[in-house]
Amino acid sequence: MAASTFPLKDELDIVIPTIRNLDFLEMWRPFFQPYHLIIVQDGDPSRSIKVPDGFDYELYNRNDINKILGPKASCISFKDSACRCFGYMVSKKKYIFTIDDDCFVAKDPTGKDIDALSQHIKNLLNPSTPYFFNTLYDPFTDGADFVRGYPFSLREGVPTAVSHGLWLNIPDYDAPTQLVKPRERNTRYVDAVMTLPKGILFPMCGMNLAFDRSLIGPAMYFGLMGDGQPIGRYDDMWAGWCVKVICDHLGLGIKTGLPYIWHSKASNPFVNLKKEYKGIFWQEEMIPFFQDAILPKDCTTVQSCYKELAKQVKDKLGKIDPYFVKLADAMVTWIDAWDELNPPAKAANSK
Amino acid sequence: MAASTFPLKDELDIVIPTIRNLDFLEMWRPFFQPYHLIIVQDGDPSRSIKVPDGFDYELYNRNDINKILGPKASCISFKDSACRCFGYMVSKKKYIFTIDDDCFVAKDPTGKDIDALSQHIKNLLNPSTPYFFNTLYDPFTDGADFVRGYPFSLREGVPTAVSHGLWLNIPDYDAPTQLVKPRERNTRYVDAVMTLPKGILFPMCGMNLAFDRSLIGPAMYFGLMGDGQPIGRYDDMWAGWCVKVICDHLGLGIKTGLPYIWHSKASNPFVNLKKEYKGIFWQEEMIPFFQDAILPKDCTTVQSCYKELAKQVKDKLGKIDPYFVKLADAMVTWIDAWDELNPPAKAANSK
Repeated sequence: MAASTFPLKDELDIVIPTIRNLDFLEMWRPFFQPYHLIIVQDGDPSRSIKVPDGFDYELYNRNDINKILGPKASCISFKDSACRCFGYMVSKKKYIFTIDDDCFVAKDPTGKDIDALSQHIKNLLNPSTPYFFNTLYDPFTDGADFVRGYPFSLREGVPTAVSHGLWLNIPDYDAPTQLVKPRERNTRYVDAVMTLPKGILFPMCGMNLAFDRSLIGPAMYFGLMGDGQPIGRYDDMWAGWCVKVICDHLGLGIKTGLPYIWHSKASNPFVNLKKEYKGIFWQEEMIPFFQDAILPKDCTTVQSCYKELAKQVKDKLGKIDPYFVKLADAMVTWIDAWDELNPPAKAANSK
Repeated sequence: MAASTFPLKDELDIVIPTIRNLDFLEMWRPFFQPYHLIIVQDGDPSRSIKVPDGFDYELYNRNDINKILGPKASCISFKDSACRCFGYMVSKKKYIFTIDDDCFVAKDPTGKDIDALSQHIKNLLNPSTPYFFNTLYDPFTDGADFVRGYPFSLREGVPTAVSHGLWLNIPDYDAPTQLVKPRERNTRYVDAVMTLPKGILFPMCGMNLAFDRSLIGPAMYFGLMGDGQPIGRYDDMWAGWCVKVICDHLGLGIKTGLPYIWHSKASNPFVNLKKEYKGIFWQEEMIPFFQDAILPKDCTTVQSCYKELAKQVKDKLGKIDPYFVKLADAMVTWIDAWDELNPPAKAANSK
């Protein structure tokens, strides 16, 4: 019983970009307390974050990041929740779960609290099937299997690198949709997990996300957002597009669907529009870029894939705006910083 | 109200391969009676099929098929439910819904009877989004939309050609899975419809299937199965793989998910194994063939795409077994027969 409630206790860190809401950890206490928390403070380093008693945590503010990374700290966003990816880098665990502080425990249709972590772990421990679509969704779910016509040679699947969870209540809409549909709520509980097919991109949201650090960690860079940058709210999207291209190349899987969390509060659509404005134009060129991106065969590690992608970003997206040149450089800095904090020998030990 | 219960009454035919079970039509009466039925008798032509009073139907047995198609009748399977595709050919309606006679009305989680037809029509009337995955599933569903990060240029979508519905109770498993999991039942009601992404194949099941005849009809050929053929139970799969390749080429969409029907009876796994035996090996070569199939740009109609695919089947799959040479020829015969019964002028009028 304990095993199913607290799976992989010593193999998973929970990364939280900030905690503005004291209720947040109290509500998650039964699920999070067994785990180690990494809190990466996204705002003013002089402000203090209160963590209720009983939680095992480490907290990093901007001063800590600067101290640990030195000049390489330039790749970590400031005053933006994108800074959370610093937590992925300093973790020494195999798995990461990251969640926003306005996300609470959701209930399933029977009224039972959803143990999001447990479902993420289930998603990550079972293979993905990106090469052929299974119409009954994840064949590794209890009571499901591969349907007639599914090639037997593809049933072994591939390792799952990412588990993308969803949100009840406030849907993750862009500013224009928020403005047009201020009252829309997601009430539909879709009882499914599925593998994202190879070759298709998706909008990866960082609100409720888990991944296998040992498989895909170095590609989970949340880019340059927030203070001093021309866009925001594309941190998780950027990471998702990079991760998908690299997973497709390396033969790794990404699952989406369950678990749900309860997203309590819509962010301000006017503020969001300001952050997203340039991204709305840019994504029309970013998507075709990622759709067409081809990684050479000799890129066999996440790091080498990511550096190659950075090169392509500079070459092809750099034409749109100097921001992408800066971002491409930051992508390289990120990998260098990652390798510094996670030297190959240590990484091998932690597996 | 009437409109939502009986949508497109004059634009849809229901095609049923055979009716062995008198309860079948009685159970569906509230939903099917407003529509025209096309019954294509899959067995002995001397056996009579009883249709309860009040249904508007036409019935074809093998003698009728031979009379109408002459030598071209060779492309229609005998003693196999694959013969149903003859019904697609003789219909003059824009939409087809096809269902097996062991499929009954399912209940949604609230206990309400599911109007499968109504959901299929909803799926077909709303666009598909095959070029980018939407994590909240079909964005055209009530209460849903495109999520943050979904490129705005792709939100118009493409016309939906196929609506693939699912099955509660007996899942559509192959013989090996049936043998291994004789007691498995599908009890999971997944409240979602989604577009199958471009470039990925799926196992299309003919048990609960609707499509837009005017968009994709000529590709809905269920192949050569049953009497005199070396395989069975690959009729709908074959159609699905051809249809998917052609939809991807022509920019048409395929949706899967809701509606559910109640699949009442598992077919005999031993009989199924006999039918599937060769297919289990062959599909390992068929799938890569369809995954790699490229249609030339000048194939702009379903017919020209299908004939090109037939050529490729003969060239590439013909090496596996002479069956595929025969099947490729039958694919061409099917298109010729389709065009004979649906001359371009008439087809234009029926739109």
